[in-house]
Amino acid sequence: MADIAFIGLGNMGAPMAENLIKAGHRLSVYDLNPQAVERLSGAGATPAASATDAVGSAQVVISMLPAGPHVRDCYLGKGNVMAATPAGALLMDCSTIDAATARAVATAAGERGLMMLDAPVSGGVNGAINGTLTFMVGGSGEALEQGRPYFEIMGKNIFHAGEAGAGQVAKMCNNMLLGILMTGTSEALNLGVAQGLDPAVLSDIMKQSSGGNWALNVYNPYPGVMDTAPASKGYQGGFGVDLMTKDLGLAMQAAVATRTATPLGSLARSLYQAHSLQGSGGLDFSSIIRFLQGEDDQ
Amino acid sequence: MADIAFIGLGNMGAPMAENLIKAGHRLSVYDLNPQAVERLSGAGATPAASATDAVGSAQVVISMLPAGPHVRDCYLGKGNVMAATPAGALLMDCSTIDAATARAVATAAGERGLMMLDAPVSGGVNGAINGTLTFMVGGSGEALEQGRPYFEIMGKNIFHAGEAGAGQVAKMCNNMLLGILMTGTSEALNLGVAQGLDPAVLSDIMKQSSGGNWALNVYNPYPGVMDTAPASKGYQGGFGVDLMTKDLGLAMQAAVATRTATPLGSLARSLYQAHSLQGSGGLDFSSIIRFLQGEDDQ
Amino acid sequence: MADIAFIGLGNMGAPMAENLIKAGHRLSVYDLNPQAVERLSGAGATPAASATDAVGSAQVVISMLPAGPHVRDCYLGKGNVMAATPAGALLMDCSTIDAATARAVATAAGERGLMMLDAPVSGGVNGAINGTLTFMVGGSGEALEQGRPYFEIMGKNIFHAGEAGAGQVAKMCNNMLLGILMTGTSEALNLGVAQGLDPAVLSDIMKQSSGGNWALNVYNPYPGVMDTAPASKGYQGGFGVDLMTKDLGLAMQAAVATRTATPLGSLARSLYQAHSLQGSGGLDFSSIIRFLQGEDDQ
Amino acid sequence: MADIAFIGLGNMGAPMAENLIKAGHRLSVYDLNPQAVERLSGAGATPAASATDAVGSAQVVISMLPAGPHVRDCYLGKGNVMAATPAGALLMDCSTIDAATARAVATAAGERGLMMLDAPVSGGVNGAINGTLTFMVGGSGEALEQGRPYFEIMGKNIFHAGEAGAGQVAKMCNNMLLGILMTGTSEALNLGVAQGLDPAVLSDIMKQSSGGNWALNVYNPYPGVMDTAPASKGYQGGFGVDLMTKDLGLAMQAAVATRTATPLGSLARSLYQAHSLQGSGGLDFSSIIRFLQGEDDQ
Repeated sequence: MADIAFIGLGNMGAPMAENLIKAGHRLSVYDLNPQAVERLSGAGATPAASATDAVGSAQVVISMLPAGPHVRDCYLGKGNVMAATPAGALLMDCSTIDAATARAVATAAGERGLMMLDAPVSGGVNGAINGTLTFMVGGSGEALEQGRPYFEIMGKNIFHAGEAGAGQVAKMCNNMLLGILMTGTSEALNLGVAQGLDPAVLSDIMKQSSGGNWALNVYNPYPGVMDTAPASKGYQGGFGVDLMTKDLGLAMQAAVATRTATPLGSLARSLYQAHSLQGSGGLDFSSIIRFLQGEDDQ
Repeated sequence: MADIAFIGLGNMGAPMAENLIKAGHRLSVYDLNPQAVERLSGAGATPAASATDAVGSAQVVISMLPAGPHVRDCYLGKGNVMAATPAGALLMDCSTIDAATARAVATAAGERGLMMLDAPVSGGVNGAINGTLTFMVGGSGEALEQGRPYFEIMGKNIFHAGEAGAGQVAKMCNNMLLGILMTGTSEALNLGVAQGLDPAVLSDIMKQSSGGNWALNVYNPYPGVMDTAPASKGYQGGFGVDLMTKDLGLAMQAAVATRTATPLGSLARSLYQAHSLQGSGGLDFSSIIRFLQGEDDQ
Repeated sequence: MADIAFIGLGNMGAPMAENLIKAGHRLSVYDLNPQAVERLSGAGATPAASATDAVGSAQVVISMLPAGPHVRDCYLGKGNVMAATPAGALLMDCSTIDAATARAVATAAGERGLMMLDAPVSGGVNGAINGTLTFMVGGSGEALEQGRPYFEIMGKNIFHAGEAGAGQVAKMCNNMLLGILMTGTSEALNLGVAQGLDPAVLSDIMKQSSGGNWALNVYNPYPGVMDTAPASKGYQGGFGVDLMTKDLGLAMQAAVATRTATPLGSLARSLYQAHSLQGSGGLDFSSIIRFLQGEDDQ
Repeated sequence: MADIAFIGLGNMGAPMAENLIKAGHRLSVYDLNPQAVERLSGAGATPAASATDAVGSAQVVISMLPAGPHVRDCYLGKGNVMAATPAGALLMDCSTIDAATARAVATAAGERGLMMLDAPVSGGVNGAINGTLTFMVGGSGEALEQGRPYFEIMGKNIFHAGEAGAGQVAKMCNNMLLGILMTGTSEALNLGVAQGLDPAVLSDIMKQSSGGNWALNVYNPYPGVMDTAPASKGYQGGFGVDLMTKDLGLAMQAAVATRTATPLGSLARSLYQAHSLQGSGGLDFSSIIRFLQGEDDQ
C-alpha cells in the first residue's frame, strides 16, 4: 500500500480519492475548501493543512485542479509542492489544462529529478464514482508503468498519448471533436424531425451508418430517445456547457499557436459560448440541440 | 423468380443489377448510354430500347439515377415509366434525390394504384459490387416487405425510415452528419499532429473515447493510419468530394425550406465546395484533411 | 399621367402606391386583403375586385408580393395578370424573390410581347413612405428607361443590374453581405466592450478605418450609440430578423445551385435562423448582437 | 526639435523614422538587423549599438516590433529599455500586439514614473511612407497630447481608444471586422458573378446600398474592378494574408479570454489560415476571394 497525497477534492477529485482509499491506500488530502477536506477525512483520509503538508511523505502525488494557473501555483508557486515532494515520488496531474503549462511543470519536475505525468480524464462524475474513467497520459513510458496501478483503481482505459503534455493535447483534440459531433448530431436530428422523421428511428439508422458516433451510441441529445441520457432528464448532470466551452477555448488557443485551421471547432466554440451566455452554462453539453431549436428562452 | 426492370446502369446501378441477375431474376435493363446496356446484356440481362420498353412486363421496377430531375423525367416525363408500368408492380427508386421529388413521384404512383419506395443507398461502389449496401427506405411497411427480397440481394442493412420521402430525408441527414464528422475528425487530427502527437496514437485514443465515430473506425482521413482507407491510397476511389458536396447541398436546401439552423452542416458544404473548386472534386471525400492542411495546391 | 395597376398593398406596397397617387397618376389597386384595398381607395385609388380586373386598362403594372410563388401565381397562375394585361404595357415586379422565378415570369412576358422588369427594393418601410427607396433593376435598358419616371417617384437610387433576374441577384448578394457585416460588426463591438472599450468610441474609430461599413454609418447595432437606430429603440421597426433570414435563405439556394462557396453567408443564415427560432423573428435584424450577447432569453 | 529613440526599422518602422528625421527631429535608431540601422544612418539617424544605447538620452522612445514577446523583451527583458530610459521621456509602442502585453508594459512604465502609449497603426507600408497612417492610441489623455506632434508627422488620423491597452483592442476589433467584411464581400461578388452579373456593376450597386463597406470603396477584391487595388495587380503588395491571419489569431485569443462569441471572426481566421497554408501567405489579404473561387492551386 502506498502513501498518496491527493490535492483538489472537487466533484471529480473527491470520488477519485475515495476509490484509492477503498483500494487500501493511505491518503493525505488537501483542498482550499475545508469542508471538502473534512468529508474525505470522514472517508478515511488524513487531512492536511496545506498542499506542502499533504505531500511531505508521499510516494505518489495526485492533483485534480480547475485550470492551468491553479496547477502552476500548486506545483511551482505558493503551493510549493514541487519543492516539498520527497525524492523518488511520482507526480500525476489529472487536471485538464493547456499543454504548455503541463510541459512547464513537467520540466520543473525533471529538473528536481521527479517523474511527472499529465493525465487528464474523461468519463465525468459518474466515471469518477464508478472508477471507470479514461486517462490520456503524457510522460515517459516508465512513469506511466509506475502510475498504472493507481490509474487502474480510478479508471478503466489508460492511453499513452506521448511525451509530457501529450495527455493534454489528446484530451483537447478529443473534446474539440466531441463538441463538433454533438453539435453536428443535433443538427442532423433537427433536420430530420423538421421533415417528419421520428428522432429515434433516424438515430437508429445513423448509428448503424456512416454518421455513427459516440453521441448516437450513448448520449443522444434528443429528449426521449435514450432514457439514460441527460437529454431525457432536462439536460441535468453530465458534462456541462461551461466545461465544453472551456475545452473548446483551449483548443482554439492551440490552433492559433500552431497555425492550424479548425473551422468547425472554432464555430463550435462560438456556439457553445453563445449558448452559455444565454443562461445555459450549467446544463449538460448535449443541450446545444435546444440552442439550435430556439428553446434557450424557455 | 421475378421480372425486374432496371433503369440506370452507372457505377452503382450496374453491379446492383448484376447481383439481381446472379440471384436468378430476369432483368430487362435500360440506360441512356448504349454501352452500359450492352455490358449488362453480356451479363445476362435483356436490353431495352427505352425505359418504357424496359418496364413493359415488369413485376418490379428499380431505378438508380443521378439527381431529382432525372427521376422526375424517368417516371413522369419523357421516360413515361409510371404510365407504362403494369398494374401491381412495385417501384423502387434507389437514387439519392431531394425528398420533395421523391414524394411527388410516390404520390403519382399512388394515384395510379402502384406502390413505390424511395430507397437511397450508402456503402459506395464496393458495397454495390459485394451486395452489402445499406438501404434507407421510405414508403409503406407493406411495400417494404414486398421489396425486401430484392433489397436483401443488393444489400445488408435495410432501414425503414418512415413514409414516402423518408428514405431520402434519412440519407440526407446521415450524409450531412458524415460530412461534419469527417471534417471535424480531420481538424482534431491536424491539431494533435501540430502539437507533436502521432496521428495513429491519437486516432486510437479518440476512437475509444467520446470523440469516437465512423471515420475513426473505418475511414481514417490521415494518410498511413489505416492501410485500407482512401487516405492511404492517394485519396483515390471511395466517395467523391463532388458527391459529398451535392449531398450537403441537398441538406442546405432542406434546411432553408424547413427553417432549420444547421451551422456546422452549412459550413461543411462551403468547405467541400471550395475544396472541389480547387480541383479536388474527384478525390475521396476524406481528402478534406488536405484542404485544411493546405495541400490542395500540391 | 398614366394608368397604373398596383397589386400587393402591404407595409411596403401601400405607401409606394400612395406616392404614385400623390404624383398625379391614376391607380387601380388590388390586394387579397379587402381592408388594404379600402384604405388605398380612401387615398384616391380605384379599387379592383381581382388582379385581372386591376390590370384591364393599365399602361403600367406594378406588383409588390411576399415571395416567388405569389409572383408566379399572380402573373402566370390564378391571377392571370400576364394574359389580362393590355399590349404595350410595362410590367414592374418589385417583390424580393428568387431569380429563377423572376426570369421565368419575364420570359413569359416576352412571349406575350410585353416588357418586364424585376426591381426589388431596399430602404424599408420608411424608404417606401418617404419615396427614397433604392431599386435594383433587371431587364432591358429600354424597359428601364420606360419605367424610370415611376421609379423616381417611389425611390431615389435606381440601379441597372443587368438582364432579367439581375435585379433579384443584386439584391440577394447585397443582403447576404448586409447580414454578414451586421453580424461581424456586432462581434467586433462585443469583443471591444468585453475588453473595456466604449462602444461609441470603438464605433467611431472603426467607421473611419478599414472596418468601416454601412452598419457603423447609419445602423449601429449597439444600444445607445446611435439614437435613431433600432438598437436604441428596443430593436423595434426596421428590417426584421425573419426577412433577413428569408433573404439569406434565397442566397443559400443560389449558392448551392451555382456551386459557390459562401462560408460566412451560410453561417449568417444559420445564426439568424436560430435567433428567429428563439423568438426574435419580429425584431430588427441588428438584434443579432443580442443573440451573441446571450440576451435572447430576456 | 526632440531627441527620439526609434527601435525596430522594418518595412513599417524605417519609413516612419525617416518621416521624423525629415521633420527635423534627431533620431537614434536600433534594429537587430545591422543593415537596417545602416540605411537609416544614411538618412541622417545616429546608429545605436543596442536598444539601451539608443534610448540613453531620449525624450521620446518609439518602437515598432513584430509581436508581443519582442515588445516584452525590448522593454522589460534583455532590451532593458524601461530601465535605461531617462526620467520624463514618453514611450510610444506602435507594434500590433496583444492587449495584455501592452498593459503589462504600460504598468511597468508607470511604476518607473514614465508615461506610455500603445499606438498600433493601420494604413500599411504606403501609409508609413506617405505619413498618412492611422494611430489607435491607448493610454492617458495627457500622454496622448504629449505624443500628438510625433503622431501627426507619421500619420493623419489619431484616435484615442481609451486607457492602456485600448489601442491594441481597437485595432484587433477593427481588423477582425476587416477580415470578415473582405471575406463577405468576396462571397457576395462570387455569388453575383456566378449568376451572370458584372462584378463592377454589382460592386457599384452594393457600395451605394446597405452592403457598403471599406473594401468596396477602396480595396475591391475582384480583379479588374479597381485599377489601384492589389486585386488588379496579382494580389501583390498591400496587407498580407499572414498578417491578417496573425491579427485574427489575436482576436480569437481575446474572444476566448473574455468569453465572447465570435462565430464569423473565428471562421475568418480558419479560412485565412487555410489560405496561408495553401501557399498564399505572402499575397495581399483580398486574395481570400481566390481561395473561395478555388484558384489557390493556380
